[in-house]
Amino acid sequence: MVNVQQGIGYMDSGVGGLTVVKEALRQLPNERVIFIGDTARNPYGPRPAAQVKAFTWQMTNFLLSKKVKMIVIACNTATAAALPEIQAALDIPVIGVIVAGSQAAIKATKNEKVGVIGTIGTIKSHAYPQAIQRQAPQVEVTGVACPKFVPLVESDEYQSAVAKKVVAESLEPFDNRDIDTLILGCTHYPIIRHLIQNRIGDQVTLIDSGAETVNQVSALLEFDQLAAAPASQPQHEFYTTGNPNMFQRIAGDWLELTDLDVRHIDLEELIKHSEVKHAKK
Amino acid sequence: MVNVQQGIGYMDSGVGGLTVVKEALRQLPNERVIFIGDTARNPYGPRPAAQVKAFTWQMTNFLLSKKVKMIVIACNTATAAALPEIQAALDIPVIGVIVAGSQAAIKATKNEKVGVIGTIGTIKSHAYPQAIQRQAPQVEVTGVACPKFVPLVESDEYQSAVAKKVVAESLEPFDNRDIDTLILGCTHYPIIRHLIQNRIGDQVTLIDSGAETVNQVSALLEFDQLAAAPASQPQHEFYTTGNPNMFQRIAGDWLELTDLDVRHIDLEELIKHSEVKHAKK
Repeated sequence: MVNVQQGIGYMDSGVGGLTVVKEALRQLPNERVIFIGDTARNPYGPRPAAQVKAFTWQMTNFLLSKKVKMIVIACNTATAAALPEIQAALDIPVIGVIVAGSQAAIKATKNEKVGVIGTIGTIKSHAYPQAIQRQAPQVEVTGVACPKFVPLVESDEYQSAVAKKVVAESLEPFDNRDIDTLILGCTHYPIIRHLIQNRIGDQVTLIDSGAETVNQVSALLEFDQLAAAPASQPQHEFYTTGNPNMFQRIAGDWLELTDLDVRHIDLEELIKHSEVKHAKK
Repeated sequence: MVNVQQGIGYMDSGVGGLTVVKEALRQLPNERVIFIGDTARNPYGPRPAAQVKAFTWQMTNFLLSKKVKMIVIACNTATAAALPEIQAALDIPVIGVIVAGSQAAIKATKNEKVGVIGTIGTIKSHAYPQAIQRQAPQVEVTGVACPKFVPLVESDEYQSAVAKKVVAESLEPFDNRDIDTLILGCTHYPIIRHLIQNRIGDQVTLIDSGAETVNQVSALLEFDQLAAAPASQPQHEFYTTGNPNMFQRIAGDWLELTDLDVRHIDLEELIKHSEVKHAKK
């Protein structure tokens, strides 16, 4: 039996998932957040899907050891590689970021031309065009991999002149494609949202897949009667396989999340969670 | 076993639910729509909750007789009166409009002051403040009943000078309340959206509960693996207890839905559906 006061688990390859958590803290203030960011093995984007899937299972099992009532894969690369398998295996709801972003793009587009940017893993998986066209076959989807964006963010370089140049070059394939909607298909990208919006133009609606995912989290909490009681004073926990100070600083600077309880977790410790049983009850 | 090619059932007290259907046709073009609007007994707003509940059950059973795979109560008054009971009784998903509208308002508000307009039944039920504050206790909610709006829309008077005056007077209670978000807590209201926006001011974000509900429909279709196959050519069906020509005209004029297959259903026929068994399997 699930206790509604249990936390919601969020995972990402690094700090990107915090853009989802920020939205969750605002929209779902009663809900306890347990977050893990695998900064030590970031980026996930260029890795083979099988490896991403193995890492995602380790984070999943780690979150299960914290007795979460729901899991959010707040990472597009991990969602593309592992969501269906993890959803099928667990008896708690597991939510990825790709369906929410796809549905928001279908809602937003007027000319039915949508762009997606993401990591190499996400773009190669074709998960976005599949999710969009399964629901709305008339929508044309152009995917472009931007492998340089995540390292910019994780290395705290996202305010530099280099960042502006990298963004300008990476988005070149959209010139003359006439898209009216662009999905930020990576939870790190909202941190450089202003650079992306400047380059792509104000006429293009940016979709933040992560923020949209929080809608689905709140819908499912309600639908499955899993919402925490009002006036809870939830104690959040943040774990990173990387440097907690860097994590703390990016969270504070860009997401205005201060006073986070950030703890380091050793990779060796995390890898032990490959072993945990995760069979459906 | 549910066949994913089965339709999605939508119901309303009249034509208002078509604002939800319009969004559904756009976002979910593979999905078959079965709609019933109870125009003959409209408006529901001033009726006792027990009567609204009985009428809602009749429409529910009518839709079940059409073998729908999911039901959307595209009417705030009916959602407030009957959703929990119908959700508990049926073994297919049943979605109301109040939770979706509440969640969208929580997402949109910056100053945490939200207004709701709806029928007397909806406002008296306190369903919106309850749904909002259960999730986000810090949000202040002001509800105002606008009982004159639905008759304006259903009588095709919504373009008249009277309409402008009625809207101006009805929204007076919001003057000096400093709300930054206003929920259109009735699916008829999007049809007079421009009058409402003009009166309340551009600085206030209007939330269309019905359109937001389609997000939850698409999330649930995905989550419960109920989505119809792509490239379906769904045959929609619309039923009204009132005059099909009036229904057709409002749908065509304001919702740009032409060539609808609208059929009249006698109240006597509909009332027979009180008898149908609806026990959970």
